[in-house]
Amino acid sequence: MIRDAINQKTTPLVLLLAALVAPALWAGGDSEPKRNLVLFVGDGMDDQNLTIARHYLAGQDGLLAMDKLPVRATVLPKTVSEISPEQPVYVGDSASGGTALATGAVTSRGRIATAPGTGEHRKTVLELAAAAGYGTGIVTTASVTDATPASFLAHINQRYCENPALMHVENYPAKGMITDCRAHGRAVGGGGSIAEQIALSAADLVIGGGRRHFARIAEGGVQTVRQIAGDNGFRVLEERSGLEDIRRYPRVLGLLADHTLPVRWQGVEEKKAVKIRRNKLPESFSCENNPAFSGTPTLEEMTEAALDHLDHHSDKGFFLMVESASIDKEIHRRNPCGHIGETEQLDEAVAAALAYAREHPDTLVLVTSDHGHAAQLIRETSDYHATGHHPPGYFARILNPEGSIMGIGYATNNSDVMEEHTGTQVPLLVNGVGDDLRVPAFGDQTMIFDLMLQHLAIDVPKP
Amino acid sequence: MIRDAINQKTTPLVLLLAALVAPALWAGGDSEPKRNLVLFVGDGMDDQNLTIARHYLAGQDGLLAMDKLPVRATVLPKTVSEISPEQPVYVGDSASGGTALATGAVTSRGRIATAPGTGEHRKTVLELAAAAGYGTGIVTTASVTDATPASFLAHINQRYCENPALMHVENYPAKGMITDCRAHGRAVGGGGSIAEQIALSAADLVIGGGRRHFARIAEGGVQTVRQIAGDNGFRVLEERSGLEDIRRYPRVLGLLADHTLPVRWQGVEEKKAVKIRRNKLPESFSCENNPAFSGTPTLEEMTEAALDHLDHHSDKGFFLMVESASIDKEIHRRNPCGHIGETEQLDEAVAAALAYAREHPDTLVLVTSDHGHAAQLIRETSDYHATGHHPPGYFARILNPEGSIMGIGYATNNSDVMEEHTGTQVPLLVNGVGDDLRVPAFGDQTMIFDLMLQHLAIDVPKP
Repeated sequence: MIRDAINQKTTPLVLLLAALVAPALWAGGDSEPKRNLVLFVGDGMDDQNLTIARHYLAGQDGLLAMDKLPVRATVLPKTVSEISPEQPVYVGDSASGGTALATGAVTSRGRIATAPGTGEHRKTVLELAAAAGYGTGIVTTASVTDATPASFLAHINQRYCENPALMHVENYPAKGMITDCRAHGRAVGGGGSIAEQIALSAADLVIGGGRRHFARIAEGGVQTVRQIAGDNGFRVLEERSGLEDIRRYPRVLGLLADHTLPVRWQGVEEKKAVKIRRNKLPESFSCENNPAFSGTPTLEEMTEAALDHLDHHSDKGFFLMVESASIDKEIHRRNPCGHIGETEQLDEAVAAALAYAREHPDTLVLVTSDHGHAAQLIRETSDYHATGHHPPGYFARILNPEGSIMGIGYATNNSDVMEEHTGTQVPLLVNGVGDDLRVPAFGDQTMIFDLMLQHLAIDVPKP
Repeated sequence: MIRDAINQKTTPLVLLLAALVAPALWAGGDSEPKRNLVLFVGDGMDDQNLTIARHYLAGQDGLLAMDKLPVRATVLPKTVSEISPEQPVYVGDSASGGTALATGAVTSRGRIATAPGTGEHRKTVLELAAAAGYGTGIVTTASVTDATPASFLAHINQRYCENPALMHVENYPAKGMITDCRAHGRAVGGGGSIAEQIALSAADLVIGGGRRHFARIAEGGVQTVRQIAGDNGFRVLEERSGLEDIRRYPRVLGLLADHTLPVRWQGVEEKKAVKIRRNKLPESFSCENNPAFSGTPTLEEMTEAALDHLDHHSDKGFFLMVESASIDKEIHRRNPCGHIGETEQLDEAVAAALAYAREHPDTLVLVTSDHGHAAQLIRETSDYHATGHHPPGYFARILNPEGSIMGIGYATNNSDVMEEHTGTQVPLLVNGVGDDLRVPAFGDQTMIFDLMLQHLAIDVPKP
């Protein structure tokens, strides 16, 4: 308003008054420069995975976009026991890791933005940012109900309670994890499943997979979860083409696949890592396109649409979390091309956010992971192979574009179901930060929550 | 001289002249402030190892001394093929890693400060620092002839040519590594074995193990290598007590054990990681003192002695490399308490150097590793254990002082000989740096060589 007045014909006196009053108004009013924050989560992306991906994508002398971020720290994923919350557990999951990032509070495996033992709800950075007037968004290659996005959008005692029909998980093998959410159903006055909570959330934009979870009838009613989302103001998009004019809709729920979005790459003829038999090394292979990915939006494309939407609709700035979810899922599956391709997807999305940040200087970009994972870059033929020895777990030999072979080992357990996470500290990469935001070189995951609230000028809530 | 003149009775005119002339002289003369550099190498110390060690030593909420260093980067260990030096090899060793750090040049596995293929010598930071007038020292818990210290002190085509009787290595299982150094023997006009080169080196101080290598008769003569070192001005110390008045001797060769120095800790009853049989998880155990360590100087003690010596004898400042070598050796042996204890030794030595740096502000402290390694922090009981599954490699369960159990897996090969390295990027930690020394958040190991020469104001030699 002050600036409009200045643009009109004005007397010198008005100009003088405006010059005196304007700084005070601008400092506190809605003309304050926008502050934006983009948090990238490479699910299960540790330094082993980054090294493997860089060698394939850029070569030994090459750089990822992420490598150009000027500030690097390491963060410790932190998890505790559900039964004895004072006892550390040294290997977490995407629920405990996501909750530490989203709420600044440490919890037990499987919990979504709730406290270990008591189940008390913890405010998430997305909720706090929305309440403070920021635009808020989530982009993921997983179902939007998966543990990482859920940790920013919902509060429940078990990550697998993704829709009203999944409020009780049977036969989950992990010890010490809650498997029953029925006491939190909407029918008994609770918040309901993760999909129901997303449908009723304050987010402006949620894009990913998981369409099937929203087709279910919500508890205690006749509407589908998707209809509830519509009543709450969400425009539901199911087509990639909907991303093109995403600005048209003030609030968007993008459900672009039934489950997880397909991954970009696979091994030749779907080869993955194998168990070595009779000391015979597997043939090396290169990565190829996954035909099922055809027509799937890239993470970069979804990120650019989200940035465009939030930039257009938010006056104060925005909070956006972007997850490349299948780095984790493909390491679980021992599929090296899968996790290399999804790391490339993350890297492209980070590059898009950095391009945005160059045009919008108060945009903080953070890149991190929720936990370490099984993949290790090992020798493509063991020094002891000649004496009849080889990697004891699953093993793949990947022929890189620069002509050398990488050995990749997966050996956290010998089940044919999947690999498990590791407890290693993980990277935190940050774009240029002002003098007021100091990033310690070491911290635990709750430090990232504190940095985000500091950038958004939101007081950290007392737990 | 100027300062001496000022201290004598002088006329005001002389004082005035002195005040005008002194700054120019001080800037270029031997009164320039000392510049010191301490490079720590945790051999095989990657983020998995740091996380494991921190949990045991400080607890999930605790900090290592290293964690307090304000700047963190990640560095890629870089290695190439001996036969085709243009081809990357993705997993290196302490020779190729040490050479990249010491000379800024990438080489093949096994090579000590020489170029792949050609064998051309590469100047080391220690040699360049000595030539520029700095004091120079090496401290290690390994034999001083081991690959990491050798990379700073010697030039040879094979790391295992440690003494005149070891110039030809038979039956070494690794492919693509040179096993014959006889063409480089002193008898045929070469530089000789690593021990002989150390005896004739320009270093002021070399402390570690490896006494046996110096008891050998040097090639083409009647003297032992040790006698040659004595003729070259080294005072040879064999007792820990010699460290106490180390300043007495201008040049010191400390040979404090026959081989590698004993490690501080072991598993209860020497338990290490085991292969799981019949799905029976191993009992957890805590770490205990290694009786063989009794009487062995700590790495902290050797580092403090080296700092005292170099501080006293160097006018211009000094270069010191300190290695905790048995982090690597104990991961090879699948002995978790071994590598946890040797990481503690490194951490104590870093703390000692940081205390020195606080009193001597132009002291740059760098902490890094030469390569990644096999140990992974995994679940202490797999999610799939109930279904008959377990880690496929070697596995240990460590009971931490805070009462929780860590699972540690080693699974790079199933030989009973040893684990192998990994190719992951490794940490670089740096104490406060001035405006003139910028540490990129990502680089390869040759970046560390460049940073060291920059701090010491030595021009980087063209290869």
